[in-house]
Amino acid sequence: MKIKVLATGGTFDKIYYDAKSDFHIGDPMSGSIFEEANVTFDYEVESILKKDSIDINDEDRAIIRQKVEQDSHEKIIITHGTDTMVKTAMQLMDIKGKTIVITGSMQPARMRISDSSYNMGVATTAVQLLPAGVYLAMNGLILDPRTTVKNVTLSRFEEVS
Amino acid sequence: MKIKVLATGGTFDKIYYDAKSDFHIGDPMSGSIFEEANVTFDYEVESILKKDSIDINDEDRAIIRQKVEQDSHEKIIITHGTDTMVKTAMQLMDIKGKTIVITGSMQPARMRISDSSYNMGVATTAVQLLPAGVYLAMNGLILDPRTTVKNVTLSRFEEVS
Amino acid sequence: MKIKVLATGGTFDKIYYDAKSDFHIGDPMSGSIFEEANVTFDYEVESILKKDSIDINDEDRAIIRQKVEQDSHEKIIITHGTDTMVKTAMQLMDIKGKTIVITGSMQPARMRISDSSYNMGVATTAVQLLPAGVYLAMNGLILDPRTTVKNVTLSRFEEVS
Amino acid sequence: MKIKVLATGGTFDKIYYDAKSDFHIGDPMSGSIFEEANVTFDYEVESILKKDSIDINDEDRAIIRQKVEQDSHEKIIITHGTDTMVKTAMQLMDIKGKTIVITGSMQPARMRISDSSYNMGVATTAVQLLPAGVYLAMNGLILDPRTTVKNVTLSRFEEVS
Repeated sequence: MKIKVLATGGTFDKIYYDAKSDFHIGDPMSGSIFEEANVTFDYEVESILKKDSIDINDEDRAIIRQKVEQDSHEKIIITHGTDTMVKTAMQLMDIKGKTIVITGSMQPARMRISDSSYNMGVATTAVQLLPAGVYLAMNGLILDPRTTVKNVTLSRFEEVS
Repeated sequence: MKIKVLATGGTFDKIYYDAKSDFHIGDPMSGSIFEEANVTFDYEVESILKKDSIDINDEDRAIIRQKVEQDSHEKIIITHGTDTMVKTAMQLMDIKGKTIVITGSMQPARMRISDSSYNMGVATTAVQLLPAGVYLAMNGLILDPRTTVKNVTLSRFEEVS
Repeated sequence: MKIKVLATGGTFDKIYYDAKSDFHIGDPMSGSIFEEANVTFDYEVESILKKDSIDINDEDRAIIRQKVEQDSHEKIIITHGTDTMVKTAMQLMDIKGKTIVITGSMQPARMRISDSSYNMGVATTAVQLLPAGVYLAMNGLILDPRTTVKNVTLSRFEEVS
Repeated sequence: MKIKVLATGGTFDKIYYDAKSDFHIGDPMSGSIFEEANVTFDYEVESILKKDSIDINDEDRAIIRQKVEQDSHEKIIITHGTDTMVKTAMQLMDIKGKTIVITGSMQPARMRISDSSYNMGVATTAVQLLPAGVYLAMNGLILDPRTTVKNVTLSRFEEVS
């Protein structure tokens, strides 16, 4: 069993960049989270995009889809900004034979207080236990992209009927 | 859906106690991990024991078992020291109708570098997704207590055949 | 002996704001740094401005100067963004009878890796030990504003002759 | 100007050691604190002892004294456990021509919440600004060893008359 992580950027991987008093997307944090958690499963992290999800366009989504389809692994986690996470998930729905879990975080992994390690715990467990399909892992829940929206005001994901 | 956490102590909840230049078991950290992770599921944390698992005796295990049996919730997480985590799990194996996930950590949740948040992400996901039974959540894996041992030298859990 | 901290914003106090996927200025962190450090001196923190120092204008500097002059305490620390820290310091140079130490940080105090606690240790010590005057506390040094520049490329302060 | 740090152990450098469910003394943390703080002064860290200060005996103190005397630098910081920090300081009082600052922490530098970075900021500033002599840097204050005691109940240092 091997888990492949495709990093696309988003809050999860942000660093604070003093020269511009601003943030930008740094290298993927998934690997250091796995080391800190002493995971013993086999994994591989690949950075395929470094963008805020608000800036991810149709072309980017085509690249993400292509990467997932061409990847030889069956268990795939995508780290992604939260703003358009649902949209990206929807474009992957019809991929067969792979368990795809999309996660991210509300606070960067490099902050003292962050939901990133916990969310990665959720995502790696979901990808191991669930059958083929596309899932979101946020706020401690496994969510169906077709019935999930981000509540921007409350900074959380919610199921809609 | 509500998750009940029974805290028994262990490394997970340790604080550093200056007056004795030593550690002892502090209040359960599960609640603050859940807050930091912005979980939206319903949960309740109860401290039932504050012990290193090396000091947990048969009487303590009887109390843990009783607490699990009498608890009204079906989804139960037990935070527990790693040294005798397997032994406690084995004593709960025949409890019916509940999904019981036992987790802990190799580094206290109050350390800068810790596996605690990630492990709680694994445990809360496993308890939601898995059928009734008793499971260990360590090192990013869901393990069967009957075939798992702690490798003390490598500080990790391993499956034996 | 009492230390007064005037917070003006800058990197030091930044929080990550998910709704805009951006950092902005949060409440002053000096107080929580002091609590974490178990300081036993008397202190008071007042937020007088919440700005990136690149956005601090002449009017803001007039306010800062007025606050310092009118403050009843002799030992004053100003937390300030690093980009125009020197400029603000220069406008305070002729204030008599007060020890004024200006500090900030290259990484927000809310990051896991930050120079903020250390810098506050430097600033509070300098303000206790030094005679009346205006000083910068950055990179572990006490610097004279008249001969100091920020090296933006290397993200550090340097003395020029 | 170069600062020499002599590390003797104590809470400051403690790590949590899972195999014994215990804390013990790890490698000195001063260097990583300096890196995190982007200090630009020259420094050197030397580990001369790895002990809880409660276990430091007369022989150890003779070694510490010898190290300080033989060291070529004038500015020396000693990281030390808090329990017998005052006693060690007293044995160095008559060393001439060196500024010696002894610091430590109530919480290990490897904890999420710790006074270690701040205390090192205080110590490095005191060692730069103060004349030859022996000083304690704790709780945000520069203290005279001859009139200072550790209040174990309140976990802080206090001046006595």
